[in-house]
Formats: sequence, C-alpha cells, structure tokens
Amino acid sequence: MEFAELIKTAKVENVQLSCSGLPPIKGTLCITSHHLLLSSQPGGNGEQGTVELWLLIRNVDAVEKSVQNLSWYQTSRTNSSHQDTRVASSLGTITLKCKDLKVLQLEIPGMEECLNIASSTETPKHEAQGWMAALPPPIFLRTNCLRGAWRLSCANGDFTICSSYPPAVIVPATVDDNILKKAARFRQGGRFPVLSYYHKKNRTVMLRSSQPLIGPNRKRCQEDEVLLSAALDGGGRGFIIDTRSAQAAKQARMMGGGTEPTSSYPRWKRLHRPLERGRPLQESFIKLVEACNDTSLSMDRWLSKLESSKWLAHVKGALSTACLAAQCMEREEACVLVHGAEGTDTTLLVTALVQVILDPDCRTLAGFQGLLEREWIEAGHPFHFRCAHSAYSHARLKQEAPIFLLFLDCVWQLGRQFPFSLQFSERLLLVLFEHTYASCYGTFLCNSEKERRLCKVKEKTHSLWAWLNQPSERKKHLNPLYTYNALVIWPSVEPQSLQLWQGLFLRWIRSSQYLEEAWAEIQRLVTSCEDAPEGSAGCTLCHSQPDAAYPLTSAGTTNEG
Amino acid sequence: MEFAELIKTAKVENVQLSCSGLPPIKGTLCITSHHLLLSSQPGGNGEQGTVELWLLIRNVDAVEKSVQNLSWYQTSRTNSSHQDTRVASSLGTITLKCKDLKVLQLEIPGMEECLNIASSTETPKHEAQGWMAALPPPIFLRTNCLRGAWRLSCANGDFTICSSYPPAVIVPATVDDNILKKAARFRQGGRFPVLSYYHKKNRTVMLRSSQPLIGPNRKRCQEDEVLLSAALDGGGRGFIIDTRSAQAAKQARMMGGGTEPTSSYPRWKRLHRPLERGRPLQESFIKLVEACNDTSLSMDRWLSKLESSKWLAHVKGALSTACLAAQCMEREEACVLVHGAEGTDTTLLVTALVQVILDPDCRTLAGFQGLLEREWIEAGHPFHFRCAHSAYSHARLKQEAPIFLLFLDCVWQLGRQFPFSLQFSERLLLVLFEHTYASCYGTFLCNSEKERRLCKVKEKTHSLWAWLNQPSERKKHLNPLYTYNALVIWPSVEPQSLQLWQGLFLRWIRSSQYLEEAWAEIQRLVTSCEDAPEGSAGCTLCHSQPDAAYPLTSAGTTNEG
Repeated sequence: MEFAELIKTAKVENVQLSCSGLPPIKGTLCITSHHLLLSSQPGGNGEQGTVELWLLIRNVDAVEKSVQNLSWYQTSRTNSSHQDTRVASSLGTITLKCKDLKVLQLEIPGMEECLNIASSTETPKHEAQGWMAALPPPIFLRTNCLRGAWRLSCANGDFTICSSYPPAVIVPATVDDNILKKAARFRQGGRFPVLSYYHKKNRTVMLRSSQPLIGPNRKRCQEDEVLLSAALDGGGRGFIIDTRSAQAAKQARMMGGGTEPTSSYPRWKRLHRPLERGRPLQESFIKLVEACNDTSLSMDRWLSKLESSKWLAHVKGALSTACLAAQCMEREEACVLVHGAEGTDTTLLVTALVQVILDPDCRTLAGFQGLLEREWIEAGHPFHFRCAHSAYSHARLKQEAPIFLLFLDCVWQLGRQFPFSLQFSERLLLVLFEHTYASCYGTFLCNSEKERRLCKVKEKTHSLWAWLNQPSERKKHLNPLYTYNALVIWPSVEPQSLQLWQGLFLRWIRSSQYLEEAWAEIQRLVTSCEDAPEGSAGCTLCHSQPDAAYPLTSAGTTNEG
Repeated sequence: MEFAELIKTAKVENVQLSCSGLPPIKGTLCITSHHLLLSSQPGGNGEQGTVELWLLIRNVDAVEKSVQNLSWYQTSRTNSSHQDTRVASSLGTITLKCKDLKVLQLEIPGMEECLNIASSTETPKHEAQGWMAALPPPIFLRTNCLRGAWRLSCANGDFTICSSYPPAVIVPATVDDNILKKAARFRQGGRFPVLSYYHKKNRTVMLRSSQPLIGPNRKRCQEDEVLLSAALDGGGRGFIIDTRSAQAAKQARMMGGGTEPTSSYPRWKRLHRPLERGRPLQESFIKLVEACNDTSLSMDRWLSKLESSKWLAHVKGALSTACLAAQCMEREEACVLVHGAEGTDTTLLVTALVQVILDPDCRTLAGFQGLLEREWIEAGHPFHFRCAHSAYSHARLKQEAPIFLLFLDCVWQLGRQFPFSLQFSERLLLVLFEHTYASCYGTFLCNSEKERRLCKVKEKTHSLWAWLNQPSERKKHLNPLYTYNALVIWPSVEPQSLQLWQGLFLRWIRSSQYLEEAWAEIQRLVTSCEDAPEGSAGCTLCHSQPDAAYPLTSAGTTNEG
C-alpha cells in the first residue's frame, strides 16, 4: 500500500498552529506523503503576510491527540417565537513532538479530521525511495603518507569478512588477506583491527576494532596477534584504550568476548575508560530533554535534574577519553587501538574526536564531512538503529542511542573553547543532528555500507553533502571567526569548563533567538570586511598550549594479565 | 605610622611566580606602599622577554604562607680529603588570593624575606590618600520630564534627615520639606520614599525607601501616608514590592520595623518577593567560588555544588523581581515602591535592574555609569562594608555581601540574552567588579555621600569614570554588536535560560582565554568594517517581544491588612 493511500483527510481549513515562543498561526493544513504543510490565511496574521510551515512527516517522533466536544444553543427568531437549537462541534488538538526536539500544536476543528491527521502522521515511515542522485565518491585515506608500511585491502569487497565494514580498509602491509580473514573470526562482528588515523607529525597510528572473542577459556588467535604486532611497525609500543571498565571487559568473557591479555599482546598496554552507550545513554538524553522542556522548575530543581540526567558527565567522559588517546599519540609517540564491545559506538566516538583534536584538516568543513564519512558512516555506525527515535517517542526503545549526538556535543564544546579553530559553525552541527534523525537525503540511511548497497541508497537518494556544499548553503555553515590553526586543540575537560549545549537542547525555547541573530550579524560583518580592502588581514590569535595532562595512570587504569 | 615603614623587605631576587594556566615566571619582587611588582629576569623566560606583574596590594583578599626548610651536603675537595659541609636554606611559598578571584603563588628564597613579604601584603590597607582629581558632576535626573508634579528637594543638604541619602532627592511637588522630615522619622535610617525612576512612556514612577517603622503597636505616620498618596498623583494605584517574605516583614515588627498595612495605604497593593542578602548571600558567593576553583570535581559533584551554592537561584530571584516591578509599570501602568528592610541592598538591586530592562538610555555606556551613580553610589549602597572582602578572605565576616556583584551578574545575563542591546561589553562588568573590591580610584569608596564628603573623596581621588571615558579606554569596553534598541528587554527568567557567568567566576581558569580573544577579534572586525565604506550599514535585527508574563499573583503574593 502506498503511503498516499493512508491519507484519509488531505486538507483541513481553519487549523491553528502554536509553537512555544511564536505567535499562533491560523491557516489551511495539507498533508502529503512526505510533508505536513500549513499555510496561513492571507491577512489573517496581522502584518505578517502569509506564513508557511513545512514539516517532514519523518521528523515526527511522537503524536499526542485530544478531542474536546463543544456544544451550545443557537437562538433563531421566527415570527412568533424564539427557537433554541443545540449545536455540537468538536475541536481536536494534535501535539507533534519532533525528532529535532521541536514541539508543535495543531488545533483542528472536527473530530474526524483530527483523528485522520493524527493517524497520517503516526503511520510508520518507510525508507524513502525514488530520489535520484549519487553520493560523492567515498573519501579514501591519504595512503601515500603511510610510506609503504600500510596497504589498502579489498578483502571485504563482498562484505563476507565483516558485514559492517566498508569494502576497502587499511591494514599493515605485511599482513595478507588470509591473516585478516582469520583475525576477523576472532573479533566480534568480524571487526578486525584497521587503521583509523595516521598522525603524520610523529608517524603514529590509531586503529579501531571490536572486542576480541577471548571467551571463558582465554582463547588466543595468532593472526590477530600478528596483525596487532605488525601495526607497531617492528619497534615501538602501543596503548589499547578499552571503552569499558576493566570489570565489564572481564565479564564480557562469559558471553564469548573479552579484552586483550598482556601475556598475548606484550607490547600493548591496556587502559580502561568506561563510556556509557545504549539504553543508559538514551535515557540520559530523554531525561535531559524532559528537564529542558519543564519550564516550571526552580533553579535548584533544574540543576538537580541536569545533574541526574548525567548528560554532561557523558560529554566529559567522551572528551577525556579522546584526549587520553590523542595524548598517547602526540606526547607518548605511541600507537593506539580503540575498542569497546561491538566497536560501532563509543569506539567511533573516541576515534572521531581524537582526529578533531589532533588534526587541523578535520576541522575544515570539507575535512569534517570526510571524517563523518570515514569514521561514522563507512565505519558502520548503525544510524538506522540508533536514530530511529529521538527523545520524545513513546515507542519501546530497541537499539536507540544518541551516541552521534554526543559526538556533536563534544565537537560543539571544542568549538566553544576554541572559537577560531573550527571552520564550521554550530549551525552545521544542528543540521547534522536533524538529518541523522529525519532527513530527505540518503547520507545517514541504513546501518552499514552493505545495507546501503542492498538498498541502492547511492542510486536512489541525494547526498546531504552535495546539498551542503552548494556555495549558497556552504556559506551559512561557516564559522566567521575561523583561521587555520595547525596546532593540537587540547580542550579543558574540567566540569566547570563544559556547558549545556543550549543551541540544541533549548533551541525551541525563545531565548536563543538573539544569539543566533548575533552570529548572523558577526557573519555579515566578516563578509563585508572581506569585501573591504583592509578587512582581509588574517587573525594571529590562534595558538594552543597543552592544557592539564590527561593522566595515563589513574583509578580506571588496569593492565591485568 | 606610614605604610611604607611597615615594609621590612622591599626587594627579593629569584622569586618564582605561578598562576594557574600560565608558565611560571622567575624574577625580582619589589614591594611598594601600593603595589607588589615582579619583573622577570631578562632572558630568563625563554622567548618571552621581560614580563612585569603589577598587583595592587589592596586587591589581596587572603595571604597564605608556608616555609620549607631545605638542607643538603656540599662536598668540597681539599688536597687530601673530601669535606662535606651541611648547607641549610629555606624556601617560602606565599599564596595571594585576590579579591578579583585570581590566585597567585610566589616562591621566595629565604624564610625571613618570605615572612616579611607576607606581613607587608597582610597589613591592613588604609583608605588611600593623596590622589588629586575630581569626580564628574553628579548626574541629576531629568526633572523636566516630570511636568511639575515632582520637585528636587535639598532638605537633606546637611545629611541630617537621612545620613545615607544624597543632599538632593526627588519627591512629589505637593509634599513640603517638613512632611519629608516627619516621614523620614517613620522609615529605617531616615530613608523616606523618593523617586528612583520616571517611566516616560506611560508616566509611571518607581520609588524606593526603607521599611516603615510600624513596630509591634502598628504605629502609623500621617506624613508618610501623605507622601505615598501624593506619589500616586491624585488618581491611579500602586504596587509595593517588598523584597522580604510576608513572614519576615511581619516578624520585623518585633524589632520596630514592618511593612505598609493596606488599611493605612489603601491605594497600594503589596507583593512580597523575598531576595537573599547579607550573610547568606556572601556564603553563596564563597561556596560558588570554592566550587569553581575545585578542579578535582566530577561532573555530578560540580553540578551538585553549583546547585547548593544557590548563586544562580539568587540571579533568577533578582531578575524575576525586577521583571515584576517593570511589568507593574509597563503593562499595569501602575506606580511602584520598592523596599526591603534598610533599603540599601536588595532594594537598589531591583530598582537598578528595572531601569536596565525598561530604559534604553540606561543601556548605553554613559547611561549605565549614570545609573550606577544614581542607584548605587548616591543612593547609599554601603560599598565599603559590603566589598571589604571578597570570597577568599579568612577574616571574620561582618557586613560583606556581594549584592552589587549579583546586580552585575544579572546585567550580564541580560547582555547574553540580548546581545545587541547593551552598548557596553562583559569587560566593563568585570572592571566594575574589580573596582568595587579594590581600586585605585575613589568612585566606590565609603558607604554614602556623607562619608565621601567627610573623607573628601572628590578632592583626594580620581574618578573611575574619568579614566573609563578616555577614548582609548572607552573603546575597549564597548559591545561591538550594539545597536540602539528602544524596546523593553524582557529577559527569560526560566532556570534553563540562566547561565553561570564563566567570564567572571572561571576567569582565572585558562579556558576563557579564547573567548576573550574571540570578542577582541569581533571588535577588530567591526572597527575595520566601520572604516570601510560598505561596513557602515546598521543592524536591523533588534526587536524585543514580551516574554512569558511574570505573574502578579503567585504563592509569594500576599496583601494582608
């Protein structure tokens, strides 16, 4: 059945739309197979002219409806007597809670219309189809930097070794595809260690994988050991950053998983830095959004709810762990392997953040898009599972978790602490958040490259990047203060230095309006300065000094054999 | 005894200065009667050249010292034998905790030198003398706006009616000086109701006073009743905003104070909005600064300490009460009288904030200085008592309370929510904070006009405003985004909309450095745009719509007779 056939009422007049902080709009509501469209009655909005709202139906996270029955007596006067007629009517209210955290209220005259509109927006949204365009060619790593020690392997070309990996991955040159195949069988989901990032400055590398399948009997895998040993390039040592606690990693053995024992991987030192993911992270997100939307709170209650949501603690944890990994590479000149259990969530959070911190190329608009392609999309973060619902949905949670949102929040914190060093603005991060949850582009569809090929996403959808990189759009997402900063940006991870991302979590509360306008004004100033002859001087303010160290040895560190 | 005679050690070599976030500096420490001066050894700081630190001794809030005895054996070789000589030395560390919340550490070789330096910085600081200049002429209210209904009274010319009022105050034209004298005896400290602000737009006025001396026997004072009735200008009604709870106002009767009973003031409706002051407010400040400086906290612990300091709740309370008073004038078109007990603390906090919210003229640099002169300095806020010590002092608290800092914080929140509407920048607010606690200018000296006359402050000191208004200084304190906004700026007072003022409370933590530089860069951009022909276009983004209403009736509202 086509979605359009599910639309029982396609058009209703005299619908009133309310959205916190904006004056209500009255107009005609239309519903199409993709959008809900409200256009205001001409002249019905004071001086505002015609207003149009376009809402992607896919953006709706939860629908709440209530119908109010109204009745009154209408008096009609005939020749000799008054006659009272009972008039009955009903007014339905639909509250649309969106995945981008916006809340809209529609007041719809007529019970039937109201219920029909509600059911149309509630209808499960299938994968969008029929769009025509192609993603830009996948971005490959700059292998020429790797001086022959690393090679591009196409052993996973048909996705049989690892269903969540892309067809091509970078591995040590001395390791042949047979070894990879055997090593893959020793890693959960086949995610054998692959190169994530090459740090040119001191020729260290960061790898990522899933957990090794040690199991209760402490199994070993020679090929996996060879692969990790080859990554160290003959000499040197490495750090394994396990994103689970030592205890959780140990307990994982009962389920067939585990972590690398020092006895089998003697040149690797293991550090445990537990990061939250899955259900607890989703619950943290829901709690935070609830607290943000509750305007009846006292200051004490708000701060206590902010604390108990634990969201900022997760931000701190992610940034600290990324700094630790970056420090291992930059200061200890050591190689790093990052993994948790599946290697598709906290692992990617850490490896992607490390690159923003260490590498100025990842801080440009193009470089950041490349980073997202490499470390999130191609690396197999299951966007379809993780971003099926946002914070409002009443649906039973299955695999939802805002791990990518947590990454965006960490990048926002970096941008706040280093206002010159990111080429893109907060606005880009907001757009990315929106498009991971509901998009008319194909970029964040499916859970892996394999699925995207099966669904023919590249053939059937447009790329978000192609849209973003149009000059007119690109301009809107740039940071007006950006100046290239070659240095590492070490963030302060003290709790006092981290802030709630108001631009996202309080976006639909009115007070951020002026801040957005302020940035627009700064942008305008910069543009007019760039046009002016004396405005072109670069800014020489960018420099970064190492901050407090992120200790390699702390309570969370163990290296049990 | 002159202060200079207390200086036992005026100069020490090889002193090391450390300050969080900056590399340590080694150099020569000199101590003068006003300053502590450290100049680095030439070439001793890598590429940095010579660095000088000037610290106003008056800025030191607390001094902590510790002496470490060192001894070692020095081997000297003679012809035939080795000889070990015991060498003893000591290294003293002085920690200077400043009123502007900066913390400096000095490592001083030699115990005696260390103790002498410490005692010189600990010496009680007398009122500074010997400076020569005059304050700008006092700013008088625009009485011509008041259309004959109000007059300037000089009845307090010799400070005998009210020692904390200025010589001239504005009162209803129909009330003569004899009535004022009698009404003053019915108000604590003689602070009879005077005009604070005239709201041109709808010709309403705001008055301020101290509490009436009702006492346990419900005393009345006809002159006070006449004065308040005259303020209502024949018709109209008024709101009394009492900055204490109804219960506290009632209890004050036991000590001779109280609040206006409806029976005696039938045209005035009383609203109670309790605001913290005195000891609890100072403790809130100390707790907040402690929490900010404790970098060992986890995120949970930090948020919980931020909450338990209650500072942000005080910010919310002050802004909400000011919004309520502003709403009474702007929307209810009613007159307002604000008072608590003494009328010198929370009263001035509210009346000053109301003017920033309502009046665009108070949002310019000159207008804001005028506001501070009128509503804080001339109105008799006891700066000398309130700002004797800041958050670090170990001295026994007497009358200290950061009520003016709370005002600056509220203004900062307004500036953050309306980034175009204040002509001055955060930097001005920081300078004002510093100068209220330790200043080489006379502006914030003493507790009242009377004291300032007795101390000949105007003859003996320079004015902070004269310094600030020099073109070179003025430029540094302007908001580059400012555009005149004629409208009322109604802030959002929801707890989610209020933020910790990081620029002040975390100023000496490294991470704000880049934010300051970002603003400097924006300033530079604006300046170069203003020079360019196309950069001069004004910004049309400024507009303000009424936000959520601040309800006139709520739990805190009573009007008992």
